[in-house]
Formats: sequence, structure tokens, C-alpha cells
Amino acid sequence: MAVVLTHDSYGKSRVRLTKVERHADRHDLFEWSVDVQLRGDFLPAYAVGDNRMVIATDTMKNTVYALAADQPLASPEAFALLLGQHFLTYSQVSSATIGVQADSWQRIEVGGRQHSHAFVGGSSERRVSTVSANRSSIRVTSGLNDVLVLKTTDSSWKDFHRDQYRTLPDAEDRILATSLTASWTYVRSTDWNAVHATVRAALFESFAGHKSLGVQHTLQAMGAAVLDAAPDVDEVTLTLPNRHRILMNLAPFGRENSDAVYVATDEPHGLISGTVRRA
Amino acid sequence: MAVVLTHDSYGKSRVRLTKVERHADRHDLFEWSVDVQLRGDFLPAYAVGDNRMVIATDTMKNTVYALAADQPLASPEAFALLLGQHFLTYSQVSSATIGVQADSWQRIEVGGRQHSHAFVGGSSERRVSTVSANRSSIRVTSGLNDVLVLKTTDSSWKDFHRDQYRTLPDAEDRILATSLTASWTYVRSTDWNAVHATVRAALFESFAGHKSLGVQHTLQAMGAAVLDAAPDVDEVTLTLPNRHRILMNLAPFGRENSDAVYVATDEPHGLISGTVRRA
Amino acid sequence: MAVVLTHDSYGKSRVRLTKVERHADRHDLFEWSVDVQLRGDFLPAYAVGDNRMVIATDTMKNTVYALAADQPLASPEAFALLLGQHFLTYSQVSSATIGVQADSWQRIEVGGRQHSHAFVGGSSERRVSTVSANRSSIRVTSGLNDVLVLKTTDSSWKDFHRDQYRTLPDAEDRILATSLTASWTYVRSTDWNAVHATVRAALFESFAGHKSLGVQHTLQAMGAAVLDAAPDVDEVTLTLPNRHRILMNLAPFGRENSDAVYVATDEPHGLISGTVRRA
Amino acid sequence: MAVVLTHDSYGKSRVRLTKVERHADRHDLFEWSVDVQLRGDFLPAYAVGDNRMVIATDTMKNTVYALAADQPLASPEAFALLLGQHFLTYSQVSSATIGVQADSWQRIEVGGRQHSHAFVGGSSERRVSTVSANRSSIRVTSGLNDVLVLKTTDSSWKDFHRDQYRTLPDAEDRILATSLTASWTYVRSTDWNAVHATVRAALFESFAGHKSLGVQHTLQAMGAAVLDAAPDVDEVTLTLPNRHRILMNLAPFGRENSDAVYVATDEPHGLISGTVRRA
Repeated sequence: MAVVLTHDSYGKSRVRLTKVERHADRHDLFEWSVDVQLRGDFLPAYAVGDNRMVIATDTMKNTVYALAADQPLASPEAFALLLGQHFLTYSQVSSATIGVQADSWQRIEVGGRQHSHAFVGGSSERRVSTVSANRSSIRVTSGLNDVLVLKTTDSSWKDFHRDQYRTLPDAEDRILATSLTASWTYVRSTDWNAVHATVRAALFESFAGHKSLGVQHTLQAMGAAVLDAAPDVDEVTLTLPNRHRILMNLAPFGRENSDAVYVATDEPHGLISGTVRRA
Repeated sequence: MAVVLTHDSYGKSRVRLTKVERHADRHDLFEWSVDVQLRGDFLPAYAVGDNRMVIATDTMKNTVYALAADQPLASPEAFALLLGQHFLTYSQVSSATIGVQADSWQRIEVGGRQHSHAFVGGSSERRVSTVSANRSSIRVTSGLNDVLVLKTTDSSWKDFHRDQYRTLPDAEDRILATSLTASWTYVRSTDWNAVHATVRAALFESFAGHKSLGVQHTLQAMGAAVLDAAPDVDEVTLTLPNRHRILMNLAPFGRENSDAVYVATDEPHGLISGTVRRA
Repeated sequence: MAVVLTHDSYGKSRVRLTKVERHADRHDLFEWSVDVQLRGDFLPAYAVGDNRMVIATDTMKNTVYALAADQPLASPEAFALLLGQHFLTYSQVSSATIGVQADSWQRIEVGGRQHSHAFVGGSSERRVSTVSANRSSIRVTSGLNDVLVLKTTDSSWKDFHRDQYRTLPDAEDRILATSLTASWTYVRSTDWNAVHATVRAALFESFAGHKSLGVQHTLQAMGAAVLDAAPDVDEVTLTLPNRHRILMNLAPFGRENSDAVYVATDEPHGLISGTVRRA
Repeated sequence: MAVVLTHDSYGKSRVRLTKVERHADRHDLFEWSVDVQLRGDFLPAYAVGDNRMVIATDTMKNTVYALAADQPLASPEAFALLLGQHFLTYSQVSSATIGVQADSWQRIEVGGRQHSHAFVGGSSERRVSTVSANRSSIRVTSGLNDVLVLKTTDSSWKDFHRDQYRTLPDAEDRILATSLTASWTYVRSTDWNAVHATVRAALFESFAGHKSLGVQHTLQAMGAAVLDAAPDVDEVTLTLPNRHRILMNLAPFGRENSDAVYVATDEPHGLISGTVRRA
């Protein structure tokens, strides 16, 4: 049957890179997972198994380790840019998409001081960056994934639509818990590490301080806070699953529950997402 | 800060529906996970916490269970269509996207006969469907996720690009293993269950029978087989991670390894995707 | 500080072995995960870092692959016995515990016939065996892990203890779902594959056929069925998490729920275990 | 067939308790997962489905939430003791085993100050306690699970046993990474929170400071450090998977690798465990 390939992409995922930068006074530790995807002149491989233009995914993996050795790992963004530019040196490659996911190691504290070469694993939070590069443009996206945050008050959920399928009562004061994923793009190249820190602080501060009338309401407030704090950021997308904590009914056991005891659940969960830009 | 929401969507995920249809001679079992996402006139909720138009995600969950009670669950596609149409009855909803993921229970065999009401969990394979509906159009996507398949021969990987980062030698005969995800769209409405069975058989048969010169080569062959077998299918997208099995070097232990003993690995892994249409 | 090591053990876990046995008419596929744990004269390694007696866990890994090449993999039990005996050839080893976990690949069916060299991943079920061997005794345990089974009727849960914390009503007819783990020991050496098939069939048949008055009741019936079917089995331990399916209350939506629509949950879950022997 | 139950136990697992203790100046957050297992006069339930003595696992779940409401949650150990004693008030219960697993939430920092009611999820570390109580004795075990720690130097692995299956060379200086699990028992009742903090600090400090000649060597040093720091601790068991970081060979790409670039792997992994007591 005559067919046509309308989209194709291939690469290597989960290249797990550990790098130690050994300074006189301390070691710096990087544990990153790198994904590479290429597009280009690869149709003969799909159509007839002619692989002459295909850079093996094993070769991509080797490249990640080799280029990581050449210079300090300044930021996920900078390394993704380096890899993207490298793969565009192949004439058969028309575009490269590089993803970097950084594990969040912290230094162990001993006697109140940060240790020079011992580390403890951080939270599920991952700093991420994706670079999509072709010969005419480069797009840098930064983000953080899977940040669990929870607030015990300043969150209501009420006056929502009533219909025959509604059973949930209004809640004046509920727990708000989510596993935050955020990604943002840029107006211009910038100091990636500084902006990451700024955006992260804005997300935490706005989540904590916002008087939430709903997850949707908090989403826009958090997005606005990011844009306000980081002039180099163009737009920000937030994904906020609502990890419900349900007030337990203790009345059958002769006890009151004055917003103290909850059942934690993972599923089903609300899922709210939105992209915020400057007006 | 003045901001604008350029995209927003919200809903309920992981609504875990079990339904038993009790016939005289047998019970049928359905265990589906349903996701609902809505778009529409919800900006006041994001902007100022005005929730009056917002259908709570808890209400969506209730709706899934209520509508599941009303009629037999003919197929994931039919139920997703039903839910999509239901949510469009709300004037404030402009579009609804419904995902259904079906677990693959099998009947227990006792004495060579299929049991009428006892079931055993199937593989990681999930039959899925996504329906995106608005007031002018409906798009039905069907698929299957996470189907582990492996062939022990008829797969080579050779003559690929040589450069300074290549270390992998040519392989005349290797193991090919993947965790197949496929999704497809339709030319027209059809018998969803029959087409699903046809597409699935075509995928299995082409994977097994193809003389593979690479994952890319097999991807196009599988896509062509689907289009050949199922005239109602418009296009098919395949995602094929390459779950490498690496021949173990037994020479240090004084043993030959004539394509017998391999190391199974999950990461890093190749990742090849493509979309195939009729020419 | 003067301390004493009252227990110690070390080894390699998750050695992922793939073996293909290539026959003229068909290929047989084995994908096993092997764990090795050793005990013996290793105290100097713990006390002062004297590693001269320590067989590196990397060496264990090499051994698994090398011995797998030497002969057909007749059964997890036979391979675990072989490995256990091998590690006892080191004078410093006093006991070896070998675990084997087998993935459940099935042949792909093409045109109603089983394919000679293409396979599809089976369910989450794992066939397992653990051999513990020292110089005076060997203990073989066999089992199967993580077998999802569910029955839609012939299961009640009623007349259980009443007290101030009970809220659950009696259920005349409920769904019974579990993720079965079973392990058994032997009166004597036997045909491991044949007994595995016999025990497995007895577990499925008794689960399906039993008029269950509770998970505890079903557990003993299943254990008795195993002992009845397999004279070479000494005792059997069953672990049965109760994966609750909760009848959904549809009354608020004006619908009856005549044992049709349920909410599937993973947590919290009951957990019932017991060991059954011949009286 | 006449059979006898030689062991039985049942209960509820993964009871996910959230509690907020609302003080004037701050809220305290507890998210714990509780497991209950009971033994006692339950044979009739197994033998003939007579459930009259059986406390439903749903009742156990209710009890966890009800008792959590009655008083502040001073520590996992104290709550496990309370639950254990509660279940022994049932005459049919001979022993109760209660497990508590605490998630590690941290306060969000805003402007350098810890927020009064907003929290961020901590690492994979879980503080745990298990209490086993019968009418004549109580045993309290405390622990911490799944603490990722890594050091970039002060770790060698050399002079280990040589045989025909060894291929690993000596390493003068390697990365040592593990996912630490520790559990300990007590000489006497104590201030559970204070001892937990003391043991945790001793584990971190000894891991960081030890000149490791192997994981076994570090295990005993860490155990000794715990016993030295915490006089109320009786013995400590440590389980240390060896999460290998493998030096990448960059020679094929014309680069040196002076202990800078590594491949991170999860499997296979070494697994070393031991129990340390005072001599």
C-alpha cells in the first residue's frame, strides 16, 4: 500500500548523566536525564531501511557524555543549547529537540555546615529545560515539574454551578494541595539560573499568599506573579492537579471534626491548566 | 499586573469506573479510567474567582457514574462520545475532551472453559479512546497503549551513519523489543470494536512478520499494514521506544555467546515515532 | 565504640537476564530478574574494610549470565538451585539465597497460530522461586506474584463484628478483587514446572468457584485446594489485598444502582494473609 | 481436605491520614499512612466464614481517623502505641501491629521566613514506626526509609576476591550512592522525636565523614555511629542498595575522563544489609 509519513522524529531518551565538578573547596554534583529527538532527511530509513543518514541513538548517548566532559555544566538550558547546536552540525538534521531534567540534590549538613562532597536527595521537584532548534530559530523553554505544595487555609471553593449532578457542598475553608508543573518561555536570552530562581520564588510566594477562591483563581494569580517578577519571561503555563483532601465525617463516632482530620486521596483528581501572558 | 489567559482547560482525571453487566449466562466486566476536560466561558473563575459558570470536577465525576448506569457500555469510543455530547449541553461549555482507558481483564479458564463471572488481569496493554467535541465538529481518536512486544530474530541494525561519536557495531541479527503505543483517527464513524480488533491484529502481524532493518523501517511497515487492513482509518501514529537487549560479552569467562544471552535494559532507550497516512 | 554485627548479608539484585533458546521450529524466550544474597566469612569487610574474601556483586552478576549460557533454563527453581550450589563452591560462603522472577511473555498469535519468534508481554503475574542453600540443607520456595483476579458475584461480607466504629453495612453480594501473591514449599524435589501449573490452576479454579463469605474464608479454601491438587506441596502462604470496589450511590441523580456501577479504589485496602498446611 | 492454618493476620493498609493542628501563630501538618494488622481468635472466619469476631478492615480505617481527632499527633511512635493499645481492648485480638509512615512536608520559605500555613513536599525520605503489641509485651521499632545519599569521594572498592568471573577493576576513588533504609529498636521508652533526630544526624554525619573501603565497611561505621549517639537505641539495621555510578569511557571520543563523567544506573544494584548491636 502506498503511504506517506506525515510526521517523524527519533532519538534517545533517559540518558542519565552524572557529572562531578571537583573544586579545591567543594565538589559540585549534577545528575541530569537528557532526551534527544531529531528530525531531518531520514525518510529512506522509514521507507526502505536505508540507514546511511541515520545517527544511531547510541551515538547520541555517547555525544551527551562526551560534550558534558568538555566544559562546566552551567545550566540545563545552556547544555541543551549546546547539544542542539551540535546536532545541527549534521547536514541531514533539520531540527533537534533536547530535554534536560535535573534531579535536586542538596548538600548534607554536618554540624550546621554544608558538606563539601556529600549530598542528600531532594524532593520530587525537577528543574527542566527543553530547547528546540532548527537552522532559523531556537526556542528555549524552562520549567519545574512535580512540586508538591499544600496550604491549610486561605482557600475556599463555593458558589460554583448547580445542576442535577452536583452533590459537593460549598467549602469556606479547605485544604489546597497540588503537584505543580510550570513551564515558561522567554522574551530574550537571559541568565537562566537567576530567572529560574526568580520564577520559582514567585510561584511559591504567590501560592502561599494568595486568598484562593478556586484552583483556577490561584492559577492566574501565580502566572501573573511570575510575569511580574521576571521581565525576561514571555509566558508561563501552569498545570495544577487538585489533590483532594476530604474532610472526614467523624459524627458516626461521636466526634466533631473542626477542620482537623482529612482523608488524603490521589484519584480521581481535578486537573486545571492555563497559560498566562502579559496583556 | 495586567495579564491575559491564552489557554485554559480544566476537568477531572482518573475517574475509575467499574461496571458489571449481569446477563443470565455470564457477567461482563468493564474497568475504565475516564478523564474529562472542558473549555468555555470560564475566564471569570481565573480572573476573579467567580465560579458561577464552573461545573465542579466533582460534578463531572458524578456524571461519569450516572451516565454509565443508563445504558450498556458498548465501546470506549461510544461512551466518550456520550460524555462529550452531555457536557456540550451546558451553554458555557465550548468544547469537551473525553479520554477513556480500558483495563484488559480476561475471563479465568476453568477446565478449558471461560468462567462466567471470574476474571484475571490482562497485560499492561490499555485500549484507549479520546473524543474532542465542540458545537461544530467531533474528532474520535482510538488507540492502544503500552503493548510489550519482542521478536528474537528478523531484525538487523546496520550501515547507519558513521562519525566520531559512533561506537556501536553493525548488528546482523538482534532482538527487537518495544512498548508499542498506537493511536489512529477515522475517515468516518464505524464499528469501533471491529476496527479496534482489525488494527490490533494488523499491528501484531506486521510486527511479527516484518524483516526489520531498523525501528524506523518497522514503524512505517506497521503503519502501512494498519491502513491496508482498516479502510475506515485515516492515519495512524506509532510510538516505539527501543527497549534494548544487549548481547552479553561472555569471552572473559571462556564462553561463546551465539545470540543466546542478553542484558535487558530500560534506560537509556531509543524513541521512534511517526504518523502514516495513505499517499 | 565496640559493636557486633548480629546479621549481615550482601549480594546483587535485579540482574536482568534475557535468554533465547533457538530451536529449528521455534525460539523460546526467557526474561528473568535474578537476585543473589550471600552470607559467610565477611566480617573483616564490615569491621575494617578488608575485602579479600568478598566476592564483588559485579562478579555475581557476571556469574548469572555465564551460567545461564551453559545449559537450557529448565525452570526458575532449577536455575536458582544451580546458582546456589555454585556460590557454595566458595569456601568463604556459608549460605546463598537466590531469587528468580520470571516475566510472563506469550507468543503472538498470527492467523490463529502461535508465532515461532514473536512475543507479547503478559500480565503483571510473575512466576518466582527462591532457593536458600547452605552446606547441610536446601530450601526451595516457589510462587506467583501480583496476579489480579476479580469475581463479580458469589462473594458476601456480612455478620462481622459490631462496635462503635463500624459504619460498613452487610453486603450480600459484592465484587471481590485482589492482587494474589502465593508461595509454597515442598515435601520433596519434584517436577517444578508441572507443580507450578497444577498449583496455579488450583488457585484460579478455587478463587472462581468458591462461595466466598469473606477474604479470610476464600484464603483458606484456596490454600486447601492447592494442597489437595499438589501432593508434593508442603504448605502454601497466600497474601490477598482486598482491592475494594465500592457501590456508587446514584440516588442523588435519580437512578437506581442494582449492583452495576462501582468506584474502583486502590487505597486504603484490606490485607489478609495466611499459611495453610495439611492437618 | 483437612488443613490447618499455621499463620494468619489481617488488617487495613494505606489509611492515608491528613491532620492539621491549627495554632494561633501557625498550622502544623501531618500526612501519615497507617497500616493495621491484627491476630487473634479469627479461625472460624477462615474455616467456615463465621465473621462474628472479625473487626472489619473498614472499621479499622474509621478508628484511625477517630483516634487521630482525639489528641495531638505527638509522634508516629506515640500514635502507633495508642492504636495498638486500642485494638487490644477487643477480647478477640491477641496482638496488633501498627505501622506509620510519615511524609516529609517542609514549610515554604517566603522572604527568608517559614510560612505559617503553606508547605512544600520534602524528599522521598519517610519517617516510619512499627509497634507490635500483645497483652504481655510491646515492641517499638523506628526508622527512616528511602533516603538518597551520595558522596563524590572518600570511597574506594579494591582488593576484593579474584576469581574467573571477576572483571571489575579496583577503584581507588569512586562515587558512593545509596537509598538508605534504617530501622532501630530501643532499650527503653524514650523521647521518640529527639532520638529520631539524633539517629538521623548520626547516619548523615557518618555517611559523609567515613573513609569508605566498601559499602559493608560504611554500614558498620554508620551502625556504630548510631549506637554511639543514641544510648536508648538497642540495635540498628541498615539496608544499603549500591546505586552504581559507572565511570564513562570517553577514550573513543578522544577525551580523558578524570573522575568527572559517570553513567547513573538503577539496576542491577548491589544490596548490602546488616544489624549492629553493642558488643
